[in-house]
Amino acid sequence: MTEIQSISFVGSGNVATHLAHAFQSANLHIHEVYSPHHSHALDFARKFNCVSRKSIQQLSSDIDLMLLCVPDSQISGVSELISPGRAIVAHTSGIEPLDSLSDKIRQTGVFYPLQTFSKDRKVDFRVVPLCIEGNQASTSELLTQLAYKLSNKVVAISSPERAMLHLTAVMVNNFSNKLYGMAHEILERNHLDFNLLLPLIQETAHKMEEMNPEEAQTGPARRNDENTISRHREMLKEFPQYQQLYQLITDQIIKKHHE
Amino acid sequence: MTEIQSISFVGSGNVATHLAHAFQSANLHIHEVYSPHHSHALDFARKFNCVSRKSIQQLSSDIDLMLLCVPDSQISGVSELISPGRAIVAHTSGIEPLDSLSDKIRQTGVFYPLQTFSKDRKVDFRVVPLCIEGNQASTSELLTQLAYKLSNKVVAISSPERAMLHLTAVMVNNFSNKLYGMAHEILERNHLDFNLLLPLIQETAHKMEEMNPEEAQTGPARRNDENTISRHREMLKEFPQYQQLYQLITDQIIKKHHE
Repeated sequence: MTEIQSISFVGSGNVATHLAHAFQSANLHIHEVYSPHHSHALDFARKFNCVSRKSIQQLSSDIDLMLLCVPDSQISGVSELISPGRAIVAHTSGIEPLDSLSDKIRQTGVFYPLQTFSKDRKVDFRVVPLCIEGNQASTSELLTQLAYKLSNKVVAISSPERAMLHLTAVMVNNFSNKLYGMAHEILERNHLDFNLLLPLIQETAHKMEEMNPEEAQTGPARRNDENTISRHREMLKEFPQYQQLYQLITDQIIKKHHE
Repeated sequence: MTEIQSISFVGSGNVATHLAHAFQSANLHIHEVYSPHHSHALDFARKFNCVSRKSIQQLSSDIDLMLLCVPDSQISGVSELISPGRAIVAHTSGIEPLDSLSDKIRQTGVFYPLQTFSKDRKVDFRVVPLCIEGNQASTSELLTQLAYKLSNKVVAISSPERAMLHLTAVMVNNFSNKLYGMAHEILERNHLDFNLLLPLIQETAHKMEEMNPEEAQTGPARRNDENTISRHREMLKEFPQYQQLYQLITDQIIKKHHE
């Protein structure tokens, strides 16, 4: 194989769907799909004009790449069940190591898009970092070539490095989103409009293009402004579950910038 | 007064500078500036082509609005020192109540831009929410008219409501930024590029335009994925100060979505 041209999907959820869109836009052929929920596979097959399979054993062995877009806990088990033929088998997980794939497979790899995917929300893949790993130099190379057809940002990283990126992705995505959720809840309870925070939320994110987070840090904790901090703490009395979190992050900022 | 046309600044820091730029773009006249750091006042005066004063008592009383852009703790004291004549005196704080301004002043108000301002980073004021309050209906009206010359998003809110917005602004801005800082520190220590997270940081923020944070929540805690959570915790052993924070936010997400 000199180039990956045909692709099968195992799994048909959010990640599979977003990747399949990106492949289709890059004129790559999606050959077939298997999902334990056959109705999902049928939807996916209709959307991407490919074959759907009722069992994993029916997947063709005459393709270049099998992409596993399944929950992390299923990667190992699924990889034991497939007969990939000449295909590269790659998973798409941020945290699972490369060697979670069956060692009976000749060519294994990782194809991890470092982005958050939501149903019905389009993602511009050209800017999504694709983190690549292969068990052989030739595998990495083929996956890297493929990745460049989707994105301008392709990086070869090891399993431990990828896990570190995944941990920090959880912080900047899942945890920031939780902070937005706290704000949403507090404002809603006080009949105030969450949308008032949107320009601030976006400016906070976009600042990171120009300055590092330590430079960008502002606010009462950054100034060690005890008066404001204690007023905030007082206001949070109705939200005891958030009081501890407020204090902990505040203490971290003070420690970083004042000790 | 039927319209605010001339403005003096007390204070010449980030907030004053960003507001002055916005006023200048709206063709409003900046009359003069006082700052306890006279060299800052001189810089400001040069930039905005206005008079600088060495003492607060020298400020002209023949203007429409005196804007206090001073640290929260100084608002009350400064307002006691000025002789505003016919001018409205407004502060720009998110947390200080309207009545922190001296009750000797006839017309008092608040003009709070809900945004984060950094030196050397331009802000599009048209989208910045301006939160207005006045001690009389006519004062609120004049400040509201003025605010609409800078922004399309002007809201009249009370002091307790503004404090609530300020608390949530700290969460979505200062605290999210701290999470970015944690990620930055962890990646740097592992020789990985923080810029890889930028598209994710921005997508997380932009999702909020289309869905609320509870819907947007993803990740190991949202899935109650104990395996990934315990791996992350293990990886954080080198960063004990962040382990507790990781656990607390994770617990909050699990509690919200699984209990």
